Amino acid sequence: MESKKLKQTQRYVLRLFMMGSNEHIKRLIPKLRPAEIVELMAHLRKSDQIRFLQLLFDVRMAAPTLTELPAEFAKELICQFADDAIAEMTRRLSPDDAVDLLAYLPEERQEQVLEQFNERERWTLERLRLYDEDTAGGRMTTEYIALSGEMTAAETLDALRQKYETGDLLDIYVTDDHNHLTGILPLRSLVFASGQTHVKDLMVPDPVTVQPDTPQEDVANLVSDFDLLAVPVVDEENKILGVVTFDDILEVMEEEATEDMYHLAGLDTAERVFSTVSRSVRLRVPWLLINLATALLAAFTVSLFKESISKFVALAVLMPIVANVGGNAGSQSLTVVVRGLALGELEFASRWKAISKEVSVGFCTGSINGLIMALIAYLWYGNLWLSLILFVAMIANMLLAGLFGAVVPLLLKWADKDPALGSHILVTTVTDVGGFFIFLGLATVLMGYLNIPL
Amino acid sequence: MESKKLKQTQRYVLRLFMMGSNEHIKRLIPKLRPAEIVELMAHLRKSDQIRFLQLLFDVRMAAPTLTELPAEFAKELICQFADDAIAEMTRRLSPDDAVDLLAYLPEERQEQVLEQFNERERWTLERLRLYDEDTAGGRMTTEYIALSGEMTAAETLDALRQKYETGDLLDIYVTDDHNHLTGILPLRSLVFASGQTHVKDLMVPDPVTVQPDTPQEDVANLVSDFDLLAVPVVDEENKILGVVTFDDILEVMEEEATEDMYHLAGLDTAERVFSTVSRSVRLRVPWLLINLATALLAAFTVSLFKESISKFVALAVLMPIVANVGGNAGSQSLTVVVRGLALGELEFASRWKAISKEVSVGFCTGSINGLIMALIAYLWYGNLWLSLILFVAMIANMLLAGLFGAVVPLLLKWADKDPALGSHILVTTVTDVGGFFIFLGLATVLMGYLNIPL
Repeated sequence: MESKKLKQTQRYVLRLFMMGSNEHIKRLIPKLRPAEIVELMAHLRKSDQIRFLQLLFDVRMAAPTLTELPAEFAKELICQFADDAIAEMTRRLSPDDAVDLLAYLPEERQEQVLEQFNERERWTLERLRLYDEDTAGGRMTTEYIALSGEMTAAETLDALRQKYETGDLLDIYVTDDHNHLTGILPLRSLVFASGQTHVKDLMVPDPVTVQPDTPQEDVANLVSDFDLLAVPVVDEENKILGVVTFDDILEVMEEEATEDMYHLAGLDTAERVFSTVSRSVRLRVPWLLINLATALLAAFTVSLFKESISKFVALAVLMPIVANVGGNAGSQSLTVVVRGLALGELEFASRWKAISKEVSVGFCTGSINGLIMALIAYLWYGNLWLSLILFVAMIANMLLAGLFGAVVPLLLKWADKDPALGSHILVTTVTDVGGFFIFLGLATVLMGYLNIPL
Repeated sequence: MESKKLKQTQRYVLRLFMMGSNEHIKRLIPKLRPAEIVELMAHLRKSDQIRFLQLLFDVRMAAPTLTELPAEFAKELICQFADDAIAEMTRRLSPDDAVDLLAYLPEERQEQVLEQFNERERWTLERLRLYDEDTAGGRMTTEYIALSGEMTAAETLDALRQKYETGDLLDIYVTDDHNHLTGILPLRSLVFASGQTHVKDLMVPDPVTVQPDTPQEDVANLVSDFDLLAVPVVDEENKILGVVTFDDILEVMEEEATEDMYHLAGLDTAERVFSTVSRSVRLRVPWLLINLATALLAAFTVSLFKESISKFVALAVLMPIVANVGGNAGSQSLTVVVRGLALGELEFASRWKAISKEVSVGFCTGSINGLIMALIAYLWYGNLWLSLILFVAMIANMLLAGLFGAVVPLLLKWADKDPALGSHILVTTVTDVGGFFIFLGLATVLMGYLNIPL
């Protein structure tokens, strides 16, 4: 639970900052990586963070640090800078990171900052802003190297050395005269090739590509399945528009996993562990109110049987067990199916197989749990009919749990919605209402046999 | 919900396979990537999959395909091969993938297959098998390029071209005479350098490293925070042992997210969407039985108040609402904290801040939900005292939810356990038992005021 140990340089910078030795800090900062600066800033108070960021700005490290900061912090901090300062910071980033940084500002300020750019820069940024941020288009950078396949390896190396900075170069994209993507040339193939070979004979033809509107989750699964480092984004005519790189893929995978977990728990994806109390309350209340409504539905179901309960209070004691274990079984089925869909594993087993499997598992686990619970209830109340009712109700409710746990996310996916969104509330509503109705309903029908005194 | 469309080559191979044109297939298969072969195999029945894998073996594509297959399938399929065939396949993989493939076999067969290797190969594999599979040591490959910093760029390029295959080369590791890691030389820096420059002047000094026993989750967070492509594994003396590469990092991130989601839902990480029914039942029943025990605890709490319930059945109708909404609020707090810990965000906000925040959020959401529920109950039952009891019980239970939702994962983390493991069951037990006890307890104390006829 202890916070990460800071390295010596980080501790030294912190101490100098407290002493106010700003010039000394400015010389040290470039030795730190942005992620290390973020670690260090976690030890400062809000007002000191703003002061520290000004130092970073002076040595041109503010922009890379802001992109590494948790979004909530970055949003607050960036607003402290003037338009021209933000423009200068943004210019130091690759276009996709620049757009992400601008997105931290309110809409009006984004426009004001964009006016600080020249026409060409603005055009690049405006174009990237058009794409949804959770698609390949919203994730791609437009800084990539595209060269003709007719060049030789030696010519290519010369061209690279003259025209480009080293940057993050890993792959070179090979295009024809009309900018159509024909292949990918990994830098390592170029290095190992003899100088006379043509690029078109070295490149990997028919590369994996995505469209600008491909959802980011699909891009991440593709990269993971094919062990890629980057994937080019092309339009309908196979003209290259940009490249989604490895660092973005890691971010996408973290985001998508967070989204699934949050949606299953009934949380808005905008929330973070360090969101303010008022923001968290605002984001959580809608979900809790939906849950309150479904809880009322369950309570209404119970109220239908209040006469049975007043005759035989053991029903009120045992009814939460049926609903509770059913809800848990539903969560299990749901999580397995949602995760299977997210990882693309569910295409391997067919959906009908998944549904029938979850129903079968529900039947088996229901039988085992029902049998144990029937035995416990018999030892507790000594009434065989009560045990039988519990046994049947638990099997029936866990069948429902398996069925809805599998069908709900598959239906959501089929309707092109997030399979995790709202599905947990829906499934537990079914197991609550269903559990109460089956258990109390059976008990009401068989009330004549439940004639045991309390 | 439709399964991924197969590409033309894939469909063609499938058709040829059905027709039995094996020789033709063998010429086509090398045009497909392992992930594409996996997609294609999803369309075959089990017996055909085994037959198809034999074809892949003949063209040396069986090993890369097996490593891409879901583990459950791969385990079944690999057992169909003889020891020498498995050894031949394994030899084509990088050592870390080879160890993973061997791990699909039962322990005795692993030993038999290892006997097929020469001493040097066996030594490499045995050494990697010693590390826990979810640590940096278990994930690293021992195939990396290490060179002396005293060489010039031109000498280094020559050495690379003569000694190494292109492989997945991205970075060159620079070591001193005693194999201590002194820096990392990205291939691109080498390409752009003038031939006379020494490697030690080109390399990035003081690289980020991990130890063999660093948990894989920490390695993934490091790679993601620092935007790395690979991270070297070093021993206590800073001697390089291996490298964890980006393809492993992607796998780790998927695995860790699955683990957290599964543990929150009460699932064993060994389960997959296509596990057999009997295996799923065996893996889920222990969790369901723990849940049954906690449900019994809640039922026992209710049974303490059965006289109050028999006097006033509305209590049985309303009590699930208090427990249910409390459980939901607990899931929310828990998920935010578990995810914050997994992504390393919780080090930014301190743990006390996180706990006090969740308690505050619990108080606020409890007040809002309690107020709404009190109003509904008043309209339903017309009893102000009942509404007041509901109001207080909901606030108290959602305070408990926030407190335990934050404290339980933090305590587990502090005890070096998985913060997600079992925490959901613990938190909902608190909100179930607590909710019933507070609501029914208050009602019992104030029973004199609840004198409204049903």
